[in-house]
Amino acid sequence: MKLEDMSKKELDGFYAKVNGQYEAYKDMALSLNMARGKPGSEQLKLSMPMLDSFNSAHASVMGDTYFNYGEPDGIPAAKELFAPMLGVDPDNVIVFGNSSLNIMYDTVSRCYNFGVQPDMTPWKDCPKVKWLCPVPGYDRHFEITKLFGFEMINIPMSESGPDMDMIEKLVANDDSIKGIWCVPMYSNPTGITYSDETVRRMAALKPAAPDFRIFWDNAYCIHHLTDEPDKLLNLYDELVKNGNEDMAYMFASTSKVTFPGGGVAIMAASPNNLKYIKSLMSVQTIGYDKLNMIRHVLFFGNYDNILAHMQKHRSILEPRFNIVTDTLERELAPLGIGSWVKPRGGYFVSFNAPKGCAKRIVELCKKAGVTLTDAGATFPYGLDPDDSNIRIAPTFPSVDELQKAMDIFVCAVKLASAESLERLAEAV
Amino acid sequence: MKLEDMSKKELDGFYAKVNGQYEAYKDMALSLNMARGKPGSEQLKLSMPMLDSFNSAHASVMGDTYFNYGEPDGIPAAKELFAPMLGVDPDNVIVFGNSSLNIMYDTVSRCYNFGVQPDMTPWKDCPKVKWLCPVPGYDRHFEITKLFGFEMINIPMSESGPDMDMIEKLVANDDSIKGIWCVPMYSNPTGITYSDETVRRMAALKPAAPDFRIFWDNAYCIHHLTDEPDKLLNLYDELVKNGNEDMAYMFASTSKVTFPGGGVAIMAASPNNLKYIKSLMSVQTIGYDKLNMIRHVLFFGNYDNILAHMQKHRSILEPRFNIVTDTLERELAPLGIGSWVKPRGGYFVSFNAPKGCAKRIVELCKKAGVTLTDAGATFPYGLDPDDSNIRIAPTFPSVDELQKAMDIFVCAVKLASAESLERLAEAV
Repeated sequence: MKLEDMSKKELDGFYAKVNGQYEAYKDMALSLNMARGKPGSEQLKLSMPMLDSFNSAHASVMGDTYFNYGEPDGIPAAKELFAPMLGVDPDNVIVFGNSSLNIMYDTVSRCYNFGVQPDMTPWKDCPKVKWLCPVPGYDRHFEITKLFGFEMINIPMSESGPDMDMIEKLVANDDSIKGIWCVPMYSNPTGITYSDETVRRMAALKPAAPDFRIFWDNAYCIHHLTDEPDKLLNLYDELVKNGNEDMAYMFASTSKVTFPGGGVAIMAASPNNLKYIKSLMSVQTIGYDKLNMIRHVLFFGNYDNILAHMQKHRSILEPRFNIVTDTLERELAPLGIGSWVKPRGGYFVSFNAPKGCAKRIVELCKKAGVTLTDAGATFPYGLDPDDSNIRIAPTFPSVDELQKAMDIFVCAVKLASAESLERLAEAV
Repeated sequence: MKLEDMSKKELDGFYAKVNGQYEAYKDMALSLNMARGKPGSEQLKLSMPMLDSFNSAHASVMGDTYFNYGEPDGIPAAKELFAPMLGVDPDNVIVFGNSSLNIMYDTVSRCYNFGVQPDMTPWKDCPKVKWLCPVPGYDRHFEITKLFGFEMINIPMSESGPDMDMIEKLVANDDSIKGIWCVPMYSNPTGITYSDETVRRMAALKPAAPDFRIFWDNAYCIHHLTDEPDKLLNLYDELVKNGNEDMAYMFASTSKVTFPGGGVAIMAASPNNLKYIKSLMSVQTIGYDKLNMIRHVLFFGNYDNILAHMQKHRSILEPRFNIVTDTLERELAPLGIGSWVKPRGGYFVSFNAPKGCAKRIVELCKKAGVTLTDAGATFPYGLDPDDSNIRIAPTFPSVDELQKAMDIFVCAVKLASAESLERLAEAV
């Protein structure tokens, strides 16, 4: 029976029963975490052999290239290995250090201080900078644009990607809109992949601002969870067709392929963009860690082996995602509470609670020992207008812990939803 | 006989002889490089065992801490290992990625965009920012402050450090002066170490700008070349005595201890400064490469072993520095051409040619196959007012190549000096 169809008496009974369950969970004094997209222990073990793939015996036959200064934009072998992740030619790639977030921040910072091209006004000197933020989205993206003082505009996400009607209209008419955050594949947190039409329309945008830039964070481009992975249309190819190739910066990393913090980050962009970025980068650093690049090259050898490695991640993650969606399906679907999409890849399940319930659910979970991403975190300024979205990160806990955490989560959702309905009933 | 004491005829004869030597060198079509402070092949080999110090067998008993996200300011063991390089408590240290230059750039960029403290005006919003540049100095420092549009002011260096009278007066009276670049030990390129008095006066500065910052790049703090290494007074202790502990950011790295590009960089600062920097850093990155930190920790174990490792570098470098200074001494001192100081550490020999001769010497060397750092590079904007200073980097070539390169260098110095005197004579 759906919760909203219950009589007052039925709802009271439901509430009492769920509250009893909840109090029992609290008494267990658990400490579980579904807050961040951290790989779990089993996943980390997959890449341990990489530590052995590059030792002094290998080094002794390598020459000094990798061990000394030089190649500020990354070693050619790493460009070649990782270029397919972003679907570009190795010449379009820069290989950086350990963090694509850092590179996105640095890219925003460069545009802010020095403009997107030498002849463009630095964003710091623009009277106003606005930024498009598909929501729900990635909190760390929003923190960057918040820090630089950009005004963030929410763009609703659907199952085909962000609302392109809205984006097209906004960028065409407002030259203070300088960028958009996109996680085009297995989006953080909704798990959806942009449709071909969305990518085509994105690549064909005609922004009023000549220095509008798409920040294409393809963080989960190879993080499939099913036999029939999503396919993302190649943005760069579409940009070239539209003569728009300078309009995007594309990012990826191996943080969730090898080691978080111990991986390498890559960026792909047009020759124009790369030329200017490299000239500015050469003031910032002599170069990034080439030894970690060659370590990755020796470990993987080729792109197919990276994909095979990701299948091992999948075998660890798929059961966890199933626990999340099965539990939601079993416990909440019959009650008609909330909505979610079973993702075919990525790191998250995005749960939409009944309006006004997300904060309460997170609070209830916390009191029962389950840490979730803060409610609102998936929106700019931490403000979810519906107080509805909660990002579930199932990768880090063990299977047993995850099931416990999800049992508590659905209990908290039931309790908060019942409370909300009781309040509604009282208000009538 | 000194060149300046020669008669016209003697000088003509000298010129002809040296020119003959020079033409012979040109015919050898050599390709030698004394331009950059790059470690040589033998030095790189010293750290190859580090590649073996951290493998999957070690990892298996370590737990997941180093392999997952977390500890954005570096692992405690690395803070403890490297803190003595900057003479501070481990709590005053952040351990970063592979490049201290990158961290200095990021620090300038943060101050520029967000101020040195939350309540201070970002430098980008100051009508004018000026910066003190002890000269000759490090070209990459000057490139950073140039890129951000700061007006750079030359401060003459003596054997005890930069001219403190001038610095004290300037900073006390001009609140647009926001910073100074310092390489306090075995300075790039002069090789001198700041005297105790210089450090005391630096720490006691009373700048008009409350957001004035000393950028203390202690790049060569353990790069000794003699049995009696220089001693640098502890800046942080002196700052604390003066209640000035927020006035400096201190930097070091292992780029020339282990691997250029494959090392780790550290920064030390006051609790106030670190708190604000960490809050801004947390937007830029989730963390730096902890695996390379633990690799260093396992390789060295403790600070004494780092110092012992540096003695191995010394045994490779000392003969090279001797070649440079012996050749200068033997070939140029009797002629009274140029001046230099035999450094007791660091990576460079700073050569002061007769005024107006540096560019010509670099040009002559280039034509004879010897690449030097561009004349003027050791000054802001590449402008050496005397066209005199040339930075010699003796570390990269082999001993044989270095001797050849120095033979050509002194030949070029003689030729350029003779040309200059001939011109002077003609002008009389």
